[in-house]
Amino acid sequence: MSLLVVGTVAFDQIETPYGKTGKILGGAATYVALAASLLTSDIRMSAVVGGDFPEEYLELFAKRKIDISGIKIVENEQSFFWSGRYHDNMNLRETLTTELNVLAGFNPVLPESYRDSKYVMLGNLTPSIQRAVIGQMKTRPKFICMDTMNFWMDTAWEDLLSVVAMTDMLTVNEEEARQLSGEHSLVLAARKIQAMGPEYVIIKRGEYGALLFCQEQMFHAPAMPLEQVADPTGAGDSFAGGLMGYLAETDNLSFDNIKNGVIFGAALASFSVEEFGTGKLLDITKQDVADRVSDFVRLVRFAI
Amino acid sequence: MSLLVVGTVAFDQIETPYGKTGKILGGAATYVALAASLLTSDIRMSAVVGGDFPEEYLELFAKRKIDISGIKIVENEQSFFWSGRYHDNMNLRETLTTELNVLAGFNPVLPESYRDSKYVMLGNLTPSIQRAVIGQMKTRPKFICMDTMNFWMDTAWEDLLSVVAMTDMLTVNEEEARQLSGEHSLVLAARKIQAMGPEYVIIKRGEYGALLFCQEQMFHAPAMPLEQVADPTGAGDSFAGGLMGYLAETDNLSFDNIKNGVIFGAALASFSVEEFGTGKLLDITKQDVADRVSDFVRLVRFAI
Repeated sequence: MSLLVVGTVAFDQIETPYGKTGKILGGAATYVALAASLLTSDIRMSAVVGGDFPEEYLELFAKRKIDISGIKIVENEQSFFWSGRYHDNMNLRETLTTELNVLAGFNPVLPESYRDSKYVMLGNLTPSIQRAVIGQMKTRPKFICMDTMNFWMDTAWEDLLSVVAMTDMLTVNEEEARQLSGEHSLVLAARKIQAMGPEYVIIKRGEYGALLFCQEQMFHAPAMPLEQVADPTGAGDSFAGGLMGYLAETDNLSFDNIKNGVIFGAALASFSVEEFGTGKLLDITKQDVADRVSDFVRLVRFAI
Repeated sequence: MSLLVVGTVAFDQIETPYGKTGKILGGAATYVALAASLLTSDIRMSAVVGGDFPEEYLELFAKRKIDISGIKIVENEQSFFWSGRYHDNMNLRETLTTELNVLAGFNPVLPESYRDSKYVMLGNLTPSIQRAVIGQMKTRPKFICMDTMNFWMDTAWEDLLSVVAMTDMLTVNEEEARQLSGEHSLVLAARKIQAMGPEYVIIKRGEYGALLFCQEQMFHAPAMPLEQVADPTGAGDSFAGGLMGYLAETDNLSFDNIKNGVIFGAALASFSVEEFGTGKLLDITKQDVADRVSDFVRLVRFAI
């Protein structure tokens, strides 16, 4: 099934205890689409970049058969740029620079061919933009997943709630789940967020994995313990890409299948962090993903 | 099979966002033995208490058929006392008071009837005391598990290493694993600790569960997401008690069975934190444990 990915396509500059990059390919939609492309084929991206965005980066998407006709290039502007630094524990990051540039005027107009997409991944963006994207769909998509962050809870509360109510799944981290719900317990937080609209809530816990909530059911996916985490940037978006790629490919929205999707998401996230930027996602094959999923099976399976 | 539990039996006074206790029953050996008693029957405790220790607390152990002939009562001294405070996130605790009292002179002499114990759980104690206990066993126990903490890494490094080398399993938290190994990656840390002696290394991650390492194999057990955590005190010891109780009962040291033990440990820990002190451990039945283990199965199982 078709998967529409809306979000940032950008330049990142990253510093971790293991090294420092120059300006490299980044952005939520980038990670989502590249991760999903290892699992499904009909992927459509909506984003905006400046005239400074290298043709070779766009070709990376095309090589993965990702439809980029919805990536608008604004010639006389600069692409969105983010730079950040991770310290020893890699769980906290410090933003050094955020230059919105072309993103400031981002007002996505979906190509006609995108408007029948069955699966939609709304990467972290201004809630009103996320809502505008939903409004352009010809019919209600089969499944809408939305990512967001605390910044929008602080600055666009009402808009945020109105979009959350339109989605089937929300992905947030622990702190965001607590802020959105006002509950410390993640169980209670997820229940309150479900009452805001989405049937599914995913709480992302970085190196500790992710929790999926649906009605009274819970599912826990671990993160893969790794010998080295080079760069956590994009882990959450790679997770969403793996999950949504799996769902679009299997087109099965049972709780059991969504659990499988969460494992595929965790697998893609585990690859993403092993190298800087999108390096690893661009390097791996479908077989690598299948092998990593088998590692996850071994990691959690027991016989009681 | 017999299970020897060595460690503190003490008074705790605990403050969390959900309340504050007076002096209540605490101590590592207390939590280990009570948790284990829900899974196996031949449990022997070695500890020391002061003359102020209430008879009714000792009766709690006896009621669970735990052998307390190895708990020495020093009439003219006070029992070990610890008080601490947990803040909102419950992951960090602040020690308010530590009064060693009778523990300062603790030099356990195992009753003759304890010296053939097959399974041994060495709760967190001065490493030289842990070593002295092993030295009193008639034959080498079938399985020795040891818990320790960063304090001994700072103050008794050589002693600590000498005991670690004598054990089959070490349980530490993430920070302790990193300090002991000098490695940030838990995978590399576990590998280095295994090279120090123990075949099995367990890294406890509180509300994020636990990782079991054996040679090149890894196993992840989640913590159960709960509506409310009243008091995290004793969670790690309840985990160890559930694990060692399960191993002593099943007497099977295959990796598959130890994985099951880790799940039982996680189940006992999840109960322990739901009420202050040992309240919940004293309240539950074997059936409750079986039901909670089923909850764990549901929490992690997927069909790939």
